[in-house]
Amino acid sequence: MTTQETAVSLKRLIEAGDPLILWFDDGTTYYITVDPAKAHSIHCGRPIPLKDLVGKSYGSWIEFEPSNVKALLLEPTIEDFIMKARRESGIIYPKDAAVLMMHCGIRSGSRVIEVGVGSGALTLALTSQVAPNGKVYSYDIREDFMKLAAANLKKAKLADYVTFKTRTGHEPFEDEGVDAIVLDVPEPWHEAENAKKALRPGGRLASLNPTYNQIETMAGALERFGFIMIEAQEVLVRGILARPGKTRPEQRMVSHTEFMLFAVRPE
Amino acid sequence: MTTQETAVSLKRLIEAGDPLILWFDDGTTYYITVDPAKAHSIHCGRPIPLKDLVGKSYGSWIEFEPSNVKALLLEPTIEDFIMKARRESGIIYPKDAAVLMMHCGIRSGSRVIEVGVGSGALTLALTSQVAPNGKVYSYDIREDFMKLAAANLKKAKLADYVTFKTRTGHEPFEDEGVDAIVLDVPEPWHEAENAKKALRPGGRLASLNPTYNQIETMAGALERFGFIMIEAQEVLVRGILARPGKTRPEQRMVSHTEFMLFAVRPE
Amino acid sequence: MTTQETAVSLKRLIEAGDPLILWFDDGTTYYITVDPAKAHSIHCGRPIPLKDLVGKSYGSWIEFEPSNVKALLLEPTIEDFIMKARRESGIIYPKDAAVLMMHCGIRSGSRVIEVGVGSGALTLALTSQVAPNGKVYSYDIREDFMKLAAANLKKAKLADYVTFKTRTGHEPFEDEGVDAIVLDVPEPWHEAENAKKALRPGGRLASLNPTYNQIETMAGALERFGFIMIEAQEVLVRGILARPGKTRPEQRMVSHTEFMLFAVRPE
Amino acid sequence: MTTQETAVSLKRLIEAGDPLILWFDDGTTYYITVDPAKAHSIHCGRPIPLKDLVGKSYGSWIEFEPSNVKALLLEPTIEDFIMKARRESGIIYPKDAAVLMMHCGIRSGSRVIEVGVGSGALTLALTSQVAPNGKVYSYDIREDFMKLAAANLKKAKLADYVTFKTRTGHEPFEDEGVDAIVLDVPEPWHEAENAKKALRPGGRLASLNPTYNQIETMAGALERFGFIMIEAQEVLVRGILARPGKTRPEQRMVSHTEFMLFAVRPE
Repeated sequence: MTTQETAVSLKRLIEAGDPLILWFDDGTTYYITVDPAKAHSIHCGRPIPLKDLVGKSYGSWIEFEPSNVKALLLEPTIEDFIMKARRESGIIYPKDAAVLMMHCGIRSGSRVIEVGVGSGALTLALTSQVAPNGKVYSYDIREDFMKLAAANLKKAKLADYVTFKTRTGHEPFEDEGVDAIVLDVPEPWHEAENAKKALRPGGRLASLNPTYNQIETMAGALERFGFIMIEAQEVLVRGILARPGKTRPEQRMVSHTEFMLFAVRPE
Repeated sequence: MTTQETAVSLKRLIEAGDPLILWFDDGTTYYITVDPAKAHSIHCGRPIPLKDLVGKSYGSWIEFEPSNVKALLLEPTIEDFIMKARRESGIIYPKDAAVLMMHCGIRSGSRVIEVGVGSGALTLALTSQVAPNGKVYSYDIREDFMKLAAANLKKAKLADYVTFKTRTGHEPFEDEGVDAIVLDVPEPWHEAENAKKALRPGGRLASLNPTYNQIETMAGALERFGFIMIEAQEVLVRGILARPGKTRPEQRMVSHTEFMLFAVRPE
Repeated sequence: MTTQETAVSLKRLIEAGDPLILWFDDGTTYYITVDPAKAHSIHCGRPIPLKDLVGKSYGSWIEFEPSNVKALLLEPTIEDFIMKARRESGIIYPKDAAVLMMHCGIRSGSRVIEVGVGSGALTLALTSQVAPNGKVYSYDIREDFMKLAAANLKKAKLADYVTFKTRTGHEPFEDEGVDAIVLDVPEPWHEAENAKKALRPGGRLASLNPTYNQIETMAGALERFGFIMIEAQEVLVRGILARPGKTRPEQRMVSHTEFMLFAVRPE
Repeated sequence: MTTQETAVSLKRLIEAGDPLILWFDDGTTYYITVDPAKAHSIHCGRPIPLKDLVGKSYGSWIEFEPSNVKALLLEPTIEDFIMKARRESGIIYPKDAAVLMMHCGIRSGSRVIEVGVGSGALTLALTSQVAPNGKVYSYDIREDFMKLAAANLKKAKLADYVTFKTRTGHEPFEDEGVDAIVLDVPEPWHEAENAKKALRPGGRLASLNPTYNQIETMAGALERFGFIMIEAQEVLVRGILARPGKTRPEQRMVSHTEFMLFAVRPE
């Protein structure tokens, strides 16, 4: 049995340094790293000494005296890590990361290049997906971003599955024969040729960009460099309020994050 | 290095029995299992003797004499397996499977119960996701469906990661402490109590249903059985035609597949 | 030439009592009734004495001393009247009103019953549409709502095209042979039979409701009372930021207002 | 009482030359002009001699011997005229026409320039909206299109409210001080200056185009020529199947027709 299976399925006891979502039934949640030397402020009672949480089980309730307020101790999912991570840049949303990885065939064991690390949101999704035997090679020009991303990965216990690499221009990637390459940069067309060299034949490229102009320019570059199966899409998630006798869609939604452009590198 | 990493990243040569997508640049694709005793008909030339493909690399081109037509040999992704698998029932779409697994925290190493196997579309997604150390326990009342699903899983080389179980009523599941349970049945509320027993504290439930009536009834049942964080959503994917000077959304789209209802089982 | 054509096309001079949109190029707008005895506060300068606006042309600029700030004097559209009207209830959005009137064939000269007046948002759309020779008969149980709606209609100079009627139960409507009936009430099924009596053969019914449950129950009632061509839809409007080199959809949108259910009353 | 009111509300008897929708309860509809010299083929019986329909009421049933099949005689709405009109070009959909007219404040009495007539779909919507005292001035380079549009308008009895004008280049429009101008041409930016001259101060422009490139270029042109309140949107209509116990969205929808760009011409 590997370390990962242990982590996912059997480990129930919270240890010092573990990540934690604290959920209150008014919908309030806190994302906490369990540092026994610290306390965490909440909205409905005195600060919680985090050492009190060590040894408790994920999934169990904790009660706060004397208010009788209860909260649930939850192990964060990758979606939680992404949405709650400290960020200094835009992030890739879980919906987009999920559909992207499905479409590119990224799975446990895959080797993936990521260009444009930002706060590490997509890195969290990719590393969780390729673990325990795959690897993500994450390039960015900004060392401060990679430092932040590394901290976010460490909190999620996924740092082993990524190698961060500083890259200042558009030089070829160091890694070869990768299964997929994911571009989250403003001018992805500068990377079309490098991407082709780094991908194995049959490998898949994804580029995430917010504007129509970017995906249009990138689609042209991919065609010029011989990529095939070039297609683009957007993913919309709409909340539904399922309540007895009064079920309806939510009244507001996120209507745009990124367009996603996909392509395959032939031989 | 595990078997799975080899499979994903390094294996380039097609062997007898391997799955294959044959892609022509007019957009036509064929999903083939490479049986050397057979030939496969195509739309633009003579049937291909499949023994000719053994030993070729995934990602390479194959040319057809005398027409000069070329096709690319592609290793199917899970999305391909789902969309091309033989089906005798409705299927769960890749977009829904991807967002569901992300939201439920299903990843390599997870143990998951699936109820309602159908043609195995969702089983393909789940097994690929939990491999190589996790497991999917798939229940259905119909043995013919499970047989079809098993054949589809075998073609995708994912049969090792699933155990199929026949179940005729609403008796408790045999498996305990699972990380997630996914329901794809018409009356999921009959499974709310069983699901609660089978999930570990903090484990996640997802129910997929096409009508709002179903998710409304299920949301009520989940609340009665003490589930928390009950929420529903739908995922829409819209194609974009990215072409120089004329980029626009596609004119038709799939506007409904399933509503997805999520919940967490507390202690 | 009728009064209405004069109002729409040729009248350029603002008179006492006229409605006005004041538009600043930072996007701020004010909806004003030009009462010469009053002044209107703005966000970027001293209050404007409204008597200064009398005699100016709609469509012209006004400058504020000494700040050099300019604002445009605009004649409100029905969309402006709806969105800026004083409200004490939910409103029907312009997008829904527009598609509803198109689908029901409501046009200049139509006679329409409206049930559920609220703040008069839909009444504004309907009266503008049926003017100058048609009529809207608007029923509500709440006199306070009808008083507010009447005030909103008067500001828009559309009061001549509506008759408000108080109605306390589900008694038959006083009006007969109408071209269309629009229901904006929580339990529209109580009106299915009354609606059938009031509509001319071939007349059209629309019911607006926020939940799936309501349109489902209403669809059943309409079928029982012999309505045909029963169909439902929702209208979504998504903003697009069209900017040189950076065009993209807006990041947030209204994702739900009302479902609209339509039907035809046969002979 | 005007002719139009008569037409809309009271006229119940079908005359020779009248337009008609024949609706069968299997959902089949036929769009017919009642020419007493002709017969109309149907899918479930012998051809109908159209002279038999003269003198019958709109909204009434007609029975076919000996099959007992019934059909309803319906007066077409503008939506019917648009969707059923003979077309030799793409059309503007009713949903887009409706929201456009609402947003531009086009109503009974308005004077509107239309550029790009095509098969007259939008002309149908505009003329119906401005009747009985307004006017639409419709320009196109192609006389064959205008001839087809004129025939479609005549069938809908709306020909009195439009003047068709042939225009070969980008010369200024003959009409001045119009309330709105609607552009349905591939390169609307050539018309930005002409549009400004033709609109009254405060008048509104709408441009409909299928690609984001077009609305982006047009937005830039409008800004250069001093238009304000430049904004773009798209309108999506999603069908809902409202059925007892099984209500759900439809599985396919039209996901793109036109982007709509709006602007106001200041003094």
